[in-house]
Amino acid sequence: MVQVAVLGYGTVGSGVVEVIEKNKDMVNKKAGQELNVKYILDLKDFPGDPYESKVIHDFDQIVNDDDVAIVCETMGGVGVAYQFTKALLEKGKSVCTSNKELVAKHGPELLQTAKAHHCNYLFEASVGGGIPIIRPLNYSLTAERIEAINGILNGTTNYILTKMEKEGADFDSVLKEAQEKGYAERNPEADVEGHDACRKIAILSSLMTGMNVDSEKIYTEGITKVTAADFVYAKAAGKSIKLLARSKALGEEEVLAMVAPFMLDKEHPLAMVNDVFNAVFVTGNMLGDSMYYGRGAGKLPTASAVVSDVVDCARHLGKVIMCFWEEKDAKLADLDNVESRYFLRAKASARAAVEAAFDCEEVLTVPGRTEDFAVFTKPVKERDFAAKCEELGSAVESRIRLF
Amino acid sequence: MVQVAVLGYGTVGSGVVEVIEKNKDMVNKKAGQELNVKYILDLKDFPGDPYESKVIHDFDQIVNDDDVAIVCETMGGVGVAYQFTKALLEKGKSVCTSNKELVAKHGPELLQTAKAHHCNYLFEASVGGGIPIIRPLNYSLTAERIEAINGILNGTTNYILTKMEKEGADFDSVLKEAQEKGYAERNPEADVEGHDACRKIAILSSLMTGMNVDSEKIYTEGITKVTAADFVYAKAAGKSIKLLARSKALGEEEVLAMVAPFMLDKEHPLAMVNDVFNAVFVTGNMLGDSMYYGRGAGKLPTASAVVSDVVDCARHLGKVIMCFWEEKDAKLADLDNVESRYFLRAKASARAAVEAAFDCEEVLTVPGRTEDFAVFTKPVKERDFAAKCEELGSAVESRIRLF
Repeated sequence: MVQVAVLGYGTVGSGVVEVIEKNKDMVNKKAGQELNVKYILDLKDFPGDPYESKVIHDFDQIVNDDDVAIVCETMGGVGVAYQFTKALLEKGKSVCTSNKELVAKHGPELLQTAKAHHCNYLFEASVGGGIPIIRPLNYSLTAERIEAINGILNGTTNYILTKMEKEGADFDSVLKEAQEKGYAERNPEADVEGHDACRKIAILSSLMTGMNVDSEKIYTEGITKVTAADFVYAKAAGKSIKLLARSKALGEEEVLAMVAPFMLDKEHPLAMVNDVFNAVFVTGNMLGDSMYYGRGAGKLPTASAVVSDVVDCARHLGKVIMCFWEEKDAKLADLDNVESRYFLRAKASARAAVEAAFDCEEVLTVPGRTEDFAVFTKPVKERDFAAKCEELGSAVESRIRLF
Repeated sequence: MVQVAVLGYGTVGSGVVEVIEKNKDMVNKKAGQELNVKYILDLKDFPGDPYESKVIHDFDQIVNDDDVAIVCETMGGVGVAYQFTKALLEKGKSVCTSNKELVAKHGPELLQTAKAHHCNYLFEASVGGGIPIIRPLNYSLTAERIEAINGILNGTTNYILTKMEKEGADFDSVLKEAQEKGYAERNPEADVEGHDACRKIAILSSLMTGMNVDSEKIYTEGITKVTAADFVYAKAAGKSIKLLARSKALGEEEVLAMVAPFMLDKEHPLAMVNDVFNAVFVTGNMLGDSMYYGRGAGKLPTASAVVSDVVDCARHLGKVIMCFWEEKDAKLADLDNVESRYFLRAKASARAAVEAAFDCEEVLTVPGRTEDFAVFTKPVKERDFAAKCEELGSAVESRIRLF
């Protein structure tokens, strides 16, 4: 029997206990032995909860219990969670986490600590919730040179954009509705400004390169400036708008990574990823494109991913599972020098100025709309594009990159 | 250094050598040691080929060479390939294969042989070409009770159906074009009659249940009866037609498996899988739906999957990688007793008779078409539906299950 502890009895933590219990026969069969949740660490008590008796408040009880071999860190944050994780790994206890913030910030260090103590630090649940993506990248696409990863990695923003697209609604009203339904936080910044997706693409980029991609250095733009009018033009052009987290390998040690709204063809597989679903689109040099799609969040999907890590740890007690993520920083390409194609929507009165400023692939007008028009530019250096938009001033109403 | 042999220097076999060579640094890093292709077994010689000197004609040289640890079986067929595989595994050499026919027919026996000799029999490339699906099922979805698998598992038929849908063409002309382009074999039966998809869903169903699902017992219907007219109605109803390979767990030991064309909503993720792409849609009891999408065939994608197995074998020399697929047969549900919903297209003159025969959810007519009409039935037992169609005789022009 393998003894497991769960740190944090919130949404994901209670899901972990539920998955281990509900799928007990399957989980134990796959783990090759019985898993038992011995402790649940939380600040609160849970009177009446079926696992009430396992709830404890003292972390030392877990770290000092030689029977505990695997710990699920479902607390979140980078303070106490970091200290606890480090202490556990130093005691040779494997840690499985859904904490993307901690993984993005201290991933390579914690992996190193785990390795030094013959245990594992696994984080399948940190990206894409229940979608298996970490393990496919680490164990399946091993014959590939991964050239690019493009993901829809945040369910809240994808829900909002899907609603805006389907209902012609604007951002503020859809955000409000999403908050009422519990799909968006009261403080939605981490989601709508792209920070959550940024951490996740930092993790995927690190696994892609084998080097550390610092999330704080990734250009990140949220969806708050996307308007109902942009969707009108997108629809007319057979396109959709999605918040994409992108990463592209440029040579051995350089990466172009960014999070931003993109306009993409309706025919692209990522365009059909709707509502709270997530997807990761991976391009390898032999396999070409493959995509991994599913629920990117939610109690049980996320918990299922954590428990799949527990199973992996149980199968590899005392052995280190391979993960290439060095502490050495990858070089991040300077976005200013990159060429992008843009959708640019501007006041109708500025049409001549816009067409003079940019080399345009297409000029878009929508019947019945006299107040504005739009263009798709040809590839233009980000720096030059920004400078020209600056010159055009308030005539520019919106700009979204083309995928 | 690990010595590797390749059996069969055809499309996939030569792809395997190419992937190992082209992605050498990546592959060796992931394998934890250098891989070297020592032998290539083929009946023919390949004068001028860069690996000409490795080509041999005598299998005994491989099976008796103690240096060879891993063998890629890319020959195909169930005769000699079976004998060679068995002999290699009995010598403790791991075998990685793209041969779905052999895996579907002798999978559990060969897994057992591998286990007894402390080596591995891996077959990631046997389903979905380069799409990682075997490994995610075996190692990632370990906390899930898999409830259903629905796949587009054959690229040729998906290419034909996509063309029919987009161009309004009929089956025969698209097949002919696909043959000219090399997307379909001169004898296309294995693809268009569903046998290829059947073998693949047998493999996936076996991994889902942990028991053996016999491909020969799976109800299999191809796409030869799907017409341009069916697509006209599908389009009018916001649906697409796909050849689906389906498997559903009914309790612990019973499975409902089938291969047949299905009409499904345009909004369903499987409906956007077009051309030669494949996808596997998996439903778990915790995770809900997830999907794995990519190139289901082709030299390099398939070879990439074989090489990912080689990497896995190299990492686990002398150790058995877990795979639950017992020799015990799973019970296959009798399709006759199952309820399905149907799309039924019939002569316009038979409208009263059709509406009297079936409990219909919807009656469909297409402006300008006076010769026929269609209905979507409510759920009806397969046996009863077939009997009623029999009674209606030649008035019934087409019947396709609804997803």
